[in-house]
Amino acid sequence: LEEALHGRSLVIASNRGPIAFEKDAGGGFVARRGAGGLVTALSHIMSYTPGRWVASAMTAADREMVGTGMGRQDVDLGDMRLGIRYLAFDRRRFDAYYNGISNGVLWFLQHSLWNPARGPRFDRSTREAWAAYHEVNQGFAETIAEEIAEAGAPAMLHDYHLMLVAGYLRKFSPDAFIYHFTHSPWTTPEGMRMLPGRMAQELLEGMLSNDLLGFQTSRWSQNFMWCCQNLLGARIDMESGVVAHQSQETVVRHYPISIDAEAVKKIAHSPEGEEHLEWLRRVVGDRKLILRVDRLELSKNILRGFRAYEEFLKSSPEWLGKVIHVALLYPSRRALSEYRSYEADVLDMHDRINADLGTDDWQPVVLVNEDNYTRALACLRRYDVLLVNPIIDGMNLVSKEGPAVNEVDGVVVLSRNAGSWQELAHGVIGVNPYDIAEMSEALEEALTMDAESKAARARALREVVEHNNPTKWVWHQLRDIRRLN
Amino acid sequence: LEEALHGRSLVIASNRGPIAFEKDAGGGFVARRGAGGLVTALSHIMSYTPGRWVASAMTAADREMVGTGMGRQDVDLGDMRLGIRYLAFDRRRFDAYYNGISNGVLWFLQHSLWNPARGPRFDRSTREAWAAYHEVNQGFAETIAEEIAEAGAPAMLHDYHLMLVAGYLRKFSPDAFIYHFTHSPWTTPEGMRMLPGRMAQELLEGMLSNDLLGFQTSRWSQNFMWCCQNLLGARIDMESGVVAHQSQETVVRHYPISIDAEAVKKIAHSPEGEEHLEWLRRVVGDRKLILRVDRLELSKNILRGFRAYEEFLKSSPEWLGKVIHVALLYPSRRALSEYRSYEADVLDMHDRINADLGTDDWQPVVLVNEDNYTRALACLRRYDVLLVNPIIDGMNLVSKEGPAVNEVDGVVVLSRNAGSWQELAHGVIGVNPYDIAEMSEALEEALTMDAESKAARARALREVVEHNNPTKWVWHQLRDIRRLN
Repeated sequence: LEEALHGRSLVIASNRGPIAFEKDAGGGFVARRGAGGLVTALSHIMSYTPGRWVASAMTAADREMVGTGMGRQDVDLGDMRLGIRYLAFDRRRFDAYYNGISNGVLWFLQHSLWNPARGPRFDRSTREAWAAYHEVNQGFAETIAEEIAEAGAPAMLHDYHLMLVAGYLRKFSPDAFIYHFTHSPWTTPEGMRMLPGRMAQELLEGMLSNDLLGFQTSRWSQNFMWCCQNLLGARIDMESGVVAHQSQETVVRHYPISIDAEAVKKIAHSPEGEEHLEWLRRVVGDRKLILRVDRLELSKNILRGFRAYEEFLKSSPEWLGKVIHVALLYPSRRALSEYRSYEADVLDMHDRINADLGTDDWQPVVLVNEDNYTRALACLRRYDVLLVNPIIDGMNLVSKEGPAVNEVDGVVVLSRNAGSWQELAHGVIGVNPYDIAEMSEALEEALTMDAESKAARARALREVVEHNNPTKWVWHQLRDIRRLN
Repeated sequence: LEEALHGRSLVIASNRGPIAFEKDAGGGFVARRGAGGLVTALSHIMSYTPGRWVASAMTAADREMVGTGMGRQDVDLGDMRLGIRYLAFDRRRFDAYYNGISNGVLWFLQHSLWNPARGPRFDRSTREAWAAYHEVNQGFAETIAEEIAEAGAPAMLHDYHLMLVAGYLRKFSPDAFIYHFTHSPWTTPEGMRMLPGRMAQELLEGMLSNDLLGFQTSRWSQNFMWCCQNLLGARIDMESGVVAHQSQETVVRHYPISIDAEAVKKIAHSPEGEEHLEWLRRVVGDRKLILRVDRLELSKNILRGFRAYEEFLKSSPEWLGKVIHVALLYPSRRALSEYRSYEADVLDMHDRINADLGTDDWQPVVLVNEDNYTRALACLRRYDVLLVNPIIDGMNLVSKEGPAVNEVDGVVVLSRNAGSWQELAHGVIGVNPYDIAEMSEALEEALTMDAESKAARARALREVVEHNNPTKWVWHQLRDIRRLN
């Protein structure tokens, strides 16, 4: 990593920063480290470089801190110093950028979550929100331009919130090296054609203002290139991963994101983790455990997962009472009505299955609806079957965290539409997330697999996960940035 | 056409044949000619050739007739003789093939009508239905093999009901020339990946058993080729339109389907047509008329069309009372619950808009829910604006029938996702079917367009429609069949 960094710094930008501020009793600001794969992976870089991280002020305390002129500061987290620069945008414009466009349009776009016959209804409010998305992206670009000028560093932009940043940044800093990594999937040309007005074109041209683009898998990078060819008439070279449009050439690569197996194990084995595992052992008893860990997210396919489990119990009634399905879910994006109704439907289906199939001493589904990363990691130590069945997923870190910490040679049932499918296919049972019958059969196959096969698969998965660590993930990107810069 | 046919005959196959039988009072069978573009276009060929048309028995009388051994016969329709061969399948298997797979899965697939977060739930019944689809397609292939052997003719297969026929037919008749034309759109690789089991692979390989494939536009043929590359690993040549897979080479072309402007005008001007037009004139009075003519079909985007009209009235209140929206709809596929609930929602929205905005002497939307082709064509003579806003459509013949018969230089507002977009773009106002604001503005633009622009556009559309007649459509296909055969 040091070699790749080559003594140079880096300016990172993402909507959510690595730290959230809180106010303590005395009115002072306290920095709390964020969770999540991105922060973990990228915080690594910050240990090696004097870079800076540009992000939106998300919490009330974040905003207040920016208001006091402290938006740009170095934060000491004990084991790490982080240079941050937080931006506070007008609340309504930020809401339009964040809920209106980023989560309300672009997330749906990239995960193909729309219901075309009824779903997206773009209207005048979409236009206003799109203007706000432009504004916030431009605001990011202005700040990043300052930071890269001061640091003489390349810019590393993240995800669907910042797809127009490179276009603006190119104007402010014509010679900058700009890199963008997409954590979500990328949709098809037909998907992009759904967007209103010039949105699709502006998004693609914004992305092509980067020198280098990173995706999770070749499937998403190919979709991106097809979109460029199809909607912009750009020339693409699939083999070498180059898109040529107007006077620009953009290199397109994929870098599958990884987890830090050691760090994850440490949390799973923490005293708090042990308590959670104890709770799980009491819940499960001597039954088999089918586990799922998911944000309450439309793309995670929780409803069909429940149906597949129900179908399995009905078609293999000898398993009634001998298996339990624990769903560790946590609320998400309740600002959007689709998420509120999805959450309600998930809770309803949990109730219905338990009412239909449960007995006095057996509850078929145990659902926990609360964000607790330590509990999730601890419980992953114990699954007999881990169900990871997203409709579509940029990567899916649970499918990597599970094998990293699991101690009983548990079997992973994995959607072929997860980004991790390409890496993990040889050690999992693959399923089509729309096929209830196939998922139900996969659960049975996983529960009845012989010990030797289970051990071999668990070993294979552990090897992949331990081999592709976050340092390598960052290293490959920095190496390409250095080569191309 | 005669030159292209070259004295040779042709075996046509489609699920629905050109004729439906009815029983008369004396218990005899009466042949009634079917409506619709396909029958009209292809009946032309039958006037020139001793070919035969293989189709499913759809009505009770069709089935009864097949039962009496009269499934294969020559029918005299006065102006035309048609050789038909109707096949009666087991009722339950036919229902699984027709409603279960063809309309319940493949139509949704090709028109991207699924709601991924909740929608398709493939299960064991899908597998059984897929086996039935195989059986019916195999049944078609067996019969077609007999007919092409007798006639020494190429086979011309139609649409999404018969996607596996070529694969079976290739086994029975290795040297046959097999051609398949797809009337619907074709979906993307990501779309096809939603299908359960080996369905996507079997569909693509079935299609590639043809020597020649026809689509409505290059957009759908390109999607098809991408699917072959992406899911089968086939080699594709986009420029020359060739897919190579295993030992086979398949040529891929597009032939946009057309209407017979003269025939359409004749119906629109028939005595019955004049009566319908008189009705319309009374309904419209001296107001402007926005017309739509659609099957009650999810892909036709009727709900967003109503919303766009409502949005137009609200944002331009000076038009209240001065315009009327007549929606000539007709029921469809009521065997599928999605269609029943869509129909109910369309009727509800019509009621709501009229309740919200109507006055004692003005009803903003007039909805007719009844299949009447003559009325539709007659009313098309009078529209000031024709709204054709499908989510996606293989071709869309209404967008061609309108300009062919309209007498008041009416303006067409056309979805860019209609197959006819490529041919008609220069003479219409294009809209994104998901964008309520854009459609609402397009309605206003169309209503306020100056006479000269309207006349120029109407002329341009008439020219296209009159130039690309069904005989040419058939001729291009037969020419390519002859060249490649």
